[in-house]
Amino acid sequence: MAAGGQGGIRPVRWHRNTLVVIDQTRLPQEYVERTLRSVEDVAEAINRLRVRGAPLIGITAAYGVALAASLAPEPTAIRAAIDQLRATRPTARDLFAALDRMERAATHNPADPARVLLDEALAIHAADLTAGRLIATQAAQVFTTPGWTMTICNTGALATGGEGTALGLIAAGYRLGLVSGVYVLETRPILQGARLTAWELQQLDIPFQLLPDSAAASLIATGRVAAIATGADRIARNGDTANKVGTRMLAELADRHQVPFHIVAPRTTFDAATPSGAAIPIEQRAGVEVMVFNGQPVAPDGTTVYNPAFDVTDAGLIGSYVTDAGVFAPNELEDSRIWN
Amino acid sequence: MAAGGQGGIRPVRWHRNTLVVIDQTRLPQEYVERTLRSVEDVAEAINRLRVRGAPLIGITAAYGVALAASLAPEPTAIRAAIDQLRATRPTARDLFAALDRMERAATHNPADPARVLLDEALAIHAADLTAGRLIATQAAQVFTTPGWTMTICNTGALATGGEGTALGLIAAGYRLGLVSGVYVLETRPILQGARLTAWELQQLDIPFQLLPDSAAASLIATGRVAAIATGADRIARNGDTANKVGTRMLAELADRHQVPFHIVAPRTTFDAATPSGAAIPIEQRAGVEVMVFNGQPVAPDGTTVYNPAFDVTDAGLIGSYVTDAGVFAPNELEDSRIWN
Repeated sequence: MAAGGQGGIRPVRWHRNTLVVIDQTRLPQEYVERTLRSVEDVAEAINRLRVRGAPLIGITAAYGVALAASLAPEPTAIRAAIDQLRATRPTARDLFAALDRMERAATHNPADPARVLLDEALAIHAADLTAGRLIATQAAQVFTTPGWTMTICNTGALATGGEGTALGLIAAGYRLGLVSGVYVLETRPILQGARLTAWELQQLDIPFQLLPDSAAASLIATGRVAAIATGADRIARNGDTANKVGTRMLAELADRHQVPFHIVAPRTTFDAATPSGAAIPIEQRAGVEVMVFNGQPVAPDGTTVYNPAFDVTDAGLIGSYVTDAGVFAPNELEDSRIWN
Repeated sequence: MAAGGQGGIRPVRWHRNTLVVIDQTRLPQEYVERTLRSVEDVAEAINRLRVRGAPLIGITAAYGVALAASLAPEPTAIRAAIDQLRATRPTARDLFAALDRMERAATHNPADPARVLLDEALAIHAADLTAGRLIATQAAQVFTTPGWTMTICNTGALATGGEGTALGLIAAGYRLGLVSGVYVLETRPILQGARLTAWELQQLDIPFQLLPDSAAASLIATGRVAAIATGADRIARNGDTANKVGTRMLAELADRHQVPFHIVAPRTTFDAATPSGAAIPIEQRAGVEVMVFNGQPVAPDGTTVYNPAFDVTDAGLIGSYVTDAGVFAPNELEDSRIWN
């Protein structure tokens, strides 16, 4: 079984034919594990953001297929589980990369699918942990100007198999003395920055300041932001990148103020089949996420909401892509090692 | 007494030697009026954002001085009231413009200060209503390309004596058929957009969409934003403008995407004594505004927060200043009619 990740956090683990996840909607107030016993449970956990983060939803979905096979090893049931999980969320490439891989494993090894598919899910999880560790080794190459790094959403242990992408890189930079602290955007509407990244940084004892997303512009304008590093949900063949809504804002501001802007992602996020950002499906989520807060309405009834979960940052705004296969400038993106 | 403003909303009114305000912290769930009976009540209402918006805090503070004079007409008590109100919030020019005017009235007409100061407060209120109506008459000149207008915070009746600044202008544009609808940024952390602007636009029956502040960038990038119009808290002599945090983000994005960007403010917001944005004091508010929502914490205990209430937009990013004295391009700002 895959070991615990950064800070001892294990966002997902296989335990006696069930899947145990941290219910991330309850953090930071409560640390609650949730046992998923069916594909329906897994689909619900992904759709309701109990597990979130592109690499983690890929891993969790893979385990979901293994869970389905352990309950009903017939090919049609496995196929139905894959289809159900594929429909949970549209944007993150890692989800489809993991499910494609599970589908290939089921097809190529029809005997003992329960064992084969669990092995494949564990391998996907292990590969993500390795990818996270490799990403972290790039810190010295990325953080060439010491100072505070800005980030959005959560890209730490909780977004992955346990090692993180951008936040893992930033933590490695901190341990090297190249990152002094982290400016954390709260990340409306779900507040993954305030709820999850702040919590992880406290566990790691790394200094940070939390800010409303709208305060990023004035902070960047002061010159106090040495670098910006974010994760990604899907990187198209031309380098256009879908990530948490607000990423494009940061990239545009970074470009104006000449702050290095890094996209940090494992190879599972790179999608050779999507030519450009225009072809990335952007999930529109329910308005209630913006209008209601902790059960209390904050906008009047009948309000129409624009609530895209992601936005697309043009490749031209991205300074580098930090991956488990190395750090790539935009003009090096052709490198075949990245694409899957 | 000054009449009700746009949509019949009366954010502040003098009533039998008390001041009646709408408690804006309770909207949109509850419409609650609050009776202020002392300078302490008035200072608390301004500091706690029960009344907010640069013009409205100026008017409310003026009435607060009248209230003080009605309770204790001695010059030292009046002076103390002015000093107390001056210390409530640091950024909005309108507050100091109104208190300076009250101070002059007290000095020049020492006889019957209660009557003189109430007359002066009523005159300040009436002048703001006139300024709002004059601003609204500029709509045809401002919205030259029909479409949706984006705005941040609340700049409607609730931010002023009753007519609004940017939102009054936008409403006038809508009535002319030049504005099709309003993209309303929710405006973290206090959510004036979600709570107040959405509510006012519903009263006015103007179509709108609410969005997280971080979603502005992707919306602007689509080309669906025909114009951006915001209010102001203080405009320095060189045109640099302090306004609700996030305004600078919009101005930078507008500049990149060639969307007309308008600052809308009465002359009371223009401050000839402040040479540039660097000299504008920016209020830093308590972290609890970002960390706690409706009494529930959203970030872990011990989190440090960067929570400036305002940011400064460089004059070079501003397309026009829409005022009660006319519409001014940046190079016309020398015009002496604007400055006070």
